[in-house]
Amino acid sequence: MGKKENMPIGMFDSGVGGLTVLKALHERMPCEDIIYLGDTARLPYGTKSPQTVSRYAVQCAAELVNRGIKLLVVACNTASAVALDALRNAYPDIPVIGVVEPGAHAACKASRNHAVAVIATESTIAGGAYQRAIHSISPDTRIIGHPCSLFVALAEEGWTDGHVPEAVARQYLEPIFNLATGAKTPVIPDTLVLGCTHFPLLVPAIKNVIDPATVIVDSAATTAEAVHGELTRLNFKRAENGYGKTRYLTTDDAARFARMGTRFLGTALAEHEVELVDL
Amino acid sequence: MGKKENMPIGMFDSGVGGLTVLKALHERMPCEDIIYLGDTARLPYGTKSPQTVSRYAVQCAAELVNRGIKLLVVACNTASAVALDALRNAYPDIPVIGVVEPGAHAACKASRNHAVAVIATESTIAGGAYQRAIHSISPDTRIIGHPCSLFVALAEEGWTDGHVPEAVARQYLEPIFNLATGAKTPVIPDTLVLGCTHFPLLVPAIKNVIDPATVIVDSAATTAEAVHGELTRLNFKRAENGYGKTRYLTTDDAARFARMGTRFLGTALAEHEVELVDL
Repeated sequence: MGKKENMPIGMFDSGVGGLTVLKALHERMPCEDIIYLGDTARLPYGTKSPQTVSRYAVQCAAELVNRGIKLLVVACNTASAVALDALRNAYPDIPVIGVVEPGAHAACKASRNHAVAVIATESTIAGGAYQRAIHSISPDTRIIGHPCSLFVALAEEGWTDGHVPEAVARQYLEPIFNLATGAKTPVIPDTLVLGCTHFPLLVPAIKNVIDPATVIVDSAATTAEAVHGELTRLNFKRAENGYGKTRYLTTDDAARFARMGTRFLGTALAEHEVELVDL
Repeated sequence: MGKKENMPIGMFDSGVGGLTVLKALHERMPCEDIIYLGDTARLPYGTKSPQTVSRYAVQCAAELVNRGIKLLVVACNTASAVALDALRNAYPDIPVIGVVEPGAHAACKASRNHAVAVIATESTIAGGAYQRAIHSISPDTRIIGHPCSLFVALAEEGWTDGHVPEAVARQYLEPIFNLATGAKTPVIPDTLVLGCTHFPLLVPAIKNVIDPATVIVDSAATTAEAVHGELTRLNFKRAENGYGKTRYLTTDDAARFARMGTRFLGTALAEHEVELVDL
């Protein structure tokens, strides 16, 4: 077991969005080593078919497993929604944690009126993974799912506050919250799940548009908590001593990964810290 | 030569954007058969490195060349900017036409004050292909290049007029045109090149933001004209009789290609008309 403890946690995402999960994980478990793979050559996953996303996810996992990891975090909502079974089949000995289930649990815990809105990419919403995960925990919860594809482009462009993101947030979110008012069951969601790792960057704009009492569930923190729980259960936690190292891998353009990564991590990431890999 | 004449024109793009070029080509040469390949599994090209884009472009071309084509249209600005040499090396017997040169020619012809603005994706602007193409025709022309990545997301989301696209267009375009006013040479560009095939869908929003006298150069029509010229020169034009057939290939999600394609073609495209291919 001693050897397992000291192995890094592997994480992958289609790009830089999952760095919001990495940041939360590092805050929760600062001693752990982490290897992060951003499959930027093939992003976005959100517009691709479930079959393609599953194939890419297994390829990402292979790269991480070959480097030796003790647990795999799928830090991408699209892949968490469609590829967990494929990953568990491919690597039955590696515990796999996605971002959907922790987010669904947090939403059910937060909502007092059993009405939850979920915003995500087109394929995450169409795949219905959040809807299923929330209903399996709380069958009576009313869920409104809505794709918000432009939020991804806004986060990557760095347009995270000001007029444009608020106008986009208003166009996406007002119908969701109005729709609830006009419905036969006049329950406005009291909880909003950010079902895409890019979306935490848009929180300031979102907060300016919706009722400030709405609870915003960002799956990064909830996933970090789930990883902590799983490592504790398996006795795979590293000794709490010093700071872990983080390694960054990308499938395309290390300079761009570093530039965008800095935005998502909130701390400087240099190009030489990012390794280019071919899957 | 008779056999060559009746072969289709091959076109590829990273996705559905190039359908604006297909539409213009079909209008200019309605008798020609066309095979269009949208590499949707790997879109967008605009954020990827030149090396990766060239590799993908040659793979797209291989699929079309294997089916038999008389001319290759690179209906993607990013690939036209970085991959023409790789394509001509890989297929020296196939004439290759990109969208950059025709657009540059049209811009130089349109501009009376020798000041041209070019908007495109991040990598097209960074690669400087339009700047080089315009300067090789008209060395004294002043060029302002600006990446407008969000226009791609807006076109794909179908948000092509109304408040949000105008706010985005204003944020991107006002500095370009103001910058010119404030500069030592107070020449505001009188010509705006849409250096991305998605951007023609945003023309209504763009027109509401800039001086209505500005000439908007959309490379779709200019590329169609260049294809016509090249086929005439080579004596490869099909007999002008009846309507040609168009075949659609995509590397992922035929249903989504058909849905988005309908938006870009302006006519209905059904899922069964789209063939899924693996490159």
